[in-house]
Amino acid sequence: MALVDEIEEIAKRRGFFWLSQEIYGGVSGFYDYGPLGALLKQNIEKLIKEHYLQEEKCLMIEAPTLTGIDPWVASGHVESFTDMTIECGKCGEAYRADHLVEEHLKVKTEGKQANEIQDMIETNKIKCPKCSGILSKVYDYNLMFKTYIGPGKTKLEAALRPETAQTTYMPFKRLFEIGRKKLPLGVMQIGKSFRNEISPRKALVRLREFTQAEIQFFVNPKEKNEWDISKVKDVEALVLTKQDQKKDGKPKKMAISDLVGKRLTNRMVAYFLAVSLLLYKKMGLDAKKLRLRQHKDNERSFYSSDTWDVEFMSEKYGRIELVGVADRTDYDLKRHQELSKQSMEVSVDGEKFIPHVIEIAYGIDRPLLCILESCIRQDGDRTYFSFPPSVAPYQAAVFPLVNKDGLPEKACEIYGMLRKKFLCLYDVSGSIGKLYYRQDEAGTAYCITVDYDTLKDNTATIRERDTKKQVRVFVKNLAGIIEKLTNGEINFEDAGKAIK
Amino acid sequence: MALVDEIEEIAKRRGFFWLSQEIYGGVSGFYDYGPLGALLKQNIEKLIKEHYLQEEKCLMIEAPTLTGIDPWVASGHVESFTDMTIECGKCGEAYRADHLVEEHLKVKTEGKQANEIQDMIETNKIKCPKCSGILSKVYDYNLMFKTYIGPGKTKLEAALRPETAQTTYMPFKRLFEIGRKKLPLGVMQIGKSFRNEISPRKALVRLREFTQAEIQFFVNPKEKNEWDISKVKDVEALVLTKQDQKKDGKPKKMAISDLVGKRLTNRMVAYFLAVSLLLYKKMGLDAKKLRLRQHKDNERSFYSSDTWDVEFMSEKYGRIELVGVADRTDYDLKRHQELSKQSMEVSVDGEKFIPHVIEIAYGIDRPLLCILESCIRQDGDRTYFSFPPSVAPYQAAVFPLVNKDGLPEKACEIYGMLRKKFLCLYDVSGSIGKLYYRQDEAGTAYCITVDYDTLKDNTATIRERDTKKQVRVFVKNLAGIIEKLTNGEINFEDAGKAIK
Repeated sequence: MALVDEIEEIAKRRGFFWLSQEIYGGVSGFYDYGPLGALLKQNIEKLIKEHYLQEEKCLMIEAPTLTGIDPWVASGHVESFTDMTIECGKCGEAYRADHLVEEHLKVKTEGKQANEIQDMIETNKIKCPKCSGILSKVYDYNLMFKTYIGPGKTKLEAALRPETAQTTYMPFKRLFEIGRKKLPLGVMQIGKSFRNEISPRKALVRLREFTQAEIQFFVNPKEKNEWDISKVKDVEALVLTKQDQKKDGKPKKMAISDLVGKRLTNRMVAYFLAVSLLLYKKMGLDAKKLRLRQHKDNERSFYSSDTWDVEFMSEKYGRIELVGVADRTDYDLKRHQELSKQSMEVSVDGEKFIPHVIEIAYGIDRPLLCILESCIRQDGDRTYFSFPPSVAPYQAAVFPLVNKDGLPEKACEIYGMLRKKFLCLYDVSGSIGKLYYRQDEAGTAYCITVDYDTLKDNTATIRERDTKKQVRVFVKNLAGIIEKLTNGEINFEDAGKAIK
Repeated sequence: MALVDEIEEIAKRRGFFWLSQEIYGGVSGFYDYGPLGALLKQNIEKLIKEHYLQEEKCLMIEAPTLTGIDPWVASGHVESFTDMTIECGKCGEAYRADHLVEEHLKVKTEGKQANEIQDMIETNKIKCPKCSGILSKVYDYNLMFKTYIGPGKTKLEAALRPETAQTTYMPFKRLFEIGRKKLPLGVMQIGKSFRNEISPRKALVRLREFTQAEIQFFVNPKEKNEWDISKVKDVEALVLTKQDQKKDGKPKKMAISDLVGKRLTNRMVAYFLAVSLLLYKKMGLDAKKLRLRQHKDNERSFYSSDTWDVEFMSEKYGRIELVGVADRTDYDLKRHQELSKQSMEVSVDGEKFIPHVIEIAYGIDRPLLCILESCIRQDGDRTYFSFPPSVAPYQAAVFPLVNKDGLPEKACEIYGMLRKKFLCLYDVSGSIGKLYYRQDEAGTAYCITVDYDTLKDNTATIRERDTKKQVRVFVKNLAGIIEKLTNGEINFEDAGKAIK
């Protein structure tokens, strides 16, 4: 059995994630993040957040996930956010009609309309895969979770948001005022979104409740191609354009400067694709499995003039879309203006216009799964996660060599000192080998051992997870050294005196 | 007009929070956090999170907010999480029946049953306050938002969670395994919860979607009164017991050790009340407005044997419950065991039992409002927020004295250096007085000014928000000094050479 096939089982056992509501049989499309997964997820969010707040100078907002229906009428989600669905007349099971046809006939259905899918089902006499019952007509099923706000007759029709984007567009004019009427204006939102998928699959790849980090850049349309890409121009990527998908379907290696030079997309989209690639590498994703893919004309959302994804080619789950960078034009703001009768126009440098939006839409759950796939390692009977230290759930763990003679007390003292600076663990239950093994399984970056010499000369051993190399350092320098190692400011070999 | 009465208006203008979906007329009970509010909120979460992860060694998990209905059947929410509601037969408006009676008759209705409220309405001929229409019968209205998961006939009845707690109880046995079968086991969850209030009021005090930080300590019932309170025993608080509420209703000043000594509650509850008080003081809440109040027997939730709140006595909003510390006994785990048929029993040190739960349930939105009330200051025509530096949305801002002669370039360079370490702003638009004013309004802790001397001797001025005092420091030390000031490791006077 390949290591990647064990990931879901390992994730459950070690506490990364498991199907939600297990004791009641589980609910598909919903996962709990366990103690390791929740910390790993926070570190992914932190990397993205810090980059956009500090480097791209974005504002951050947080809007509710439950809203009235108006924004989704404006955005087109009420009308168009649907999947073709079909139900069994006998057992009641529902299926995505296009997927059912694809699986049954081994054909592609991309771009096909509901009536064409209906024809294919009838012609080929496709029955319910579960009970062989007769299937209903294909119908459009809206993927928003709907509910009502307030009681009684005056209750308000409501929906859980299927994306954060619209909840950032609604207060645009207020944000523009707060940002002192300047463009570009970048606004980030990190939070939950919801899609009532018909048959969610593939662990964290297709969830009904998921976390997004979405950034909306409101820009003067001219700015899209005036963006400064100098910091990322030499970043290389495997690129699959919409043209190449029509031709040989093979991605080509090129630099970001080529992407712009060949006018394959605008400078802003190119820049944020590069930024995303760099962020994924920092998170520990296997760079060889990443590529950029442009949406084809028939797959692109109705609101977008150009969309690109960064994709991870998973050994287990196939192609996983990690982030979408889309030129949403002025579509959404115009629609909100029409429906709300509130002007979305701005006046900047003597020009009046409705801003365009470049959206960078990160999923947070999917990269977590890709990090596990990228970082899992087997080394003899040792299975471990080689997470980058800054992304690892715990940066360090502290053990006493033996559970007596004052060593636990000393180790606790060190643990107390370190845990003020970063997340770390104290463990005492088991032999030193067992203690190491347990931390390797959790992907803890550094293990610190306190032994008899520590009591004499106030030094301790740091062990690096991947290489199992060890260095000896002064206790008083431990916190600083672990911080420098975590931030990549020093090499492990230079952290202290090597132990042979 | 008192300063506190302006808080909602100021919050909207400066970007702390505003009613959600404003362009569509707003939806009551839902607020957007703007750029300053979102950062302030994150800092509140961070303080609580760091304390419980690092000091109390809790595990962190994250469960979905949307769940099947089973856990809420088990918890009693389907049956009992209701408010007495009444509707107008004419205009359709709905009201909380007990509140309507209280307002109309100026009486207390605490503890009254639906039929008693119904009688009071009929006897006093209370009509719809809006249109004088005849009111319906009083009925129990369930406060959970309900929806369905999946399509068609096999769809699953679902609800948005009204508390995080049950979503932590469900995977208890898995968490117990991951925590290596030890008690006490503390598990924290920070996330959204939802209550479909009939008439939400008071800005962030009563929201329909809100953020909680809830910690569940699974314990051997014996441990509740064996908890080490030595770190907090001398913490003093205004305490209002359930007995005193029956008598004079006056809180008494006492130390946490007295609370335990007089057997007013168990050591665990007392400890976490003290921890919460200390956290609120760190956040900048006015300590004089904080008190501990024990729930009376007739107000306590059915699952709890003893509950205490930390309350903030707001000048504008009255009594605000900030955190509830409750002894939930083994009620919830037992109920889940009954309904799911999965054992919740553990075996520890030769004993077999279902653990008890001590819950510490923080709201995150309410303290944010209380921080604004506690920190707003007027000083001549200057209105500012005296946030503790570690809680302030931005720790620092950097300006050039004038927008020419190479000063903006130098200021930008410093800004680039600082923003790698903490959140800061760069601003250049306006006179230095205007720049200071703007940062004071945002509660930015420190302003750094770059002037002609900076170009000569590489020093810059740091100005403290509250005192307007200034010191001169070397640019190379800036980041370290701001960090030490923020962490309270040095006094401002000792940060550099005083400028008179």
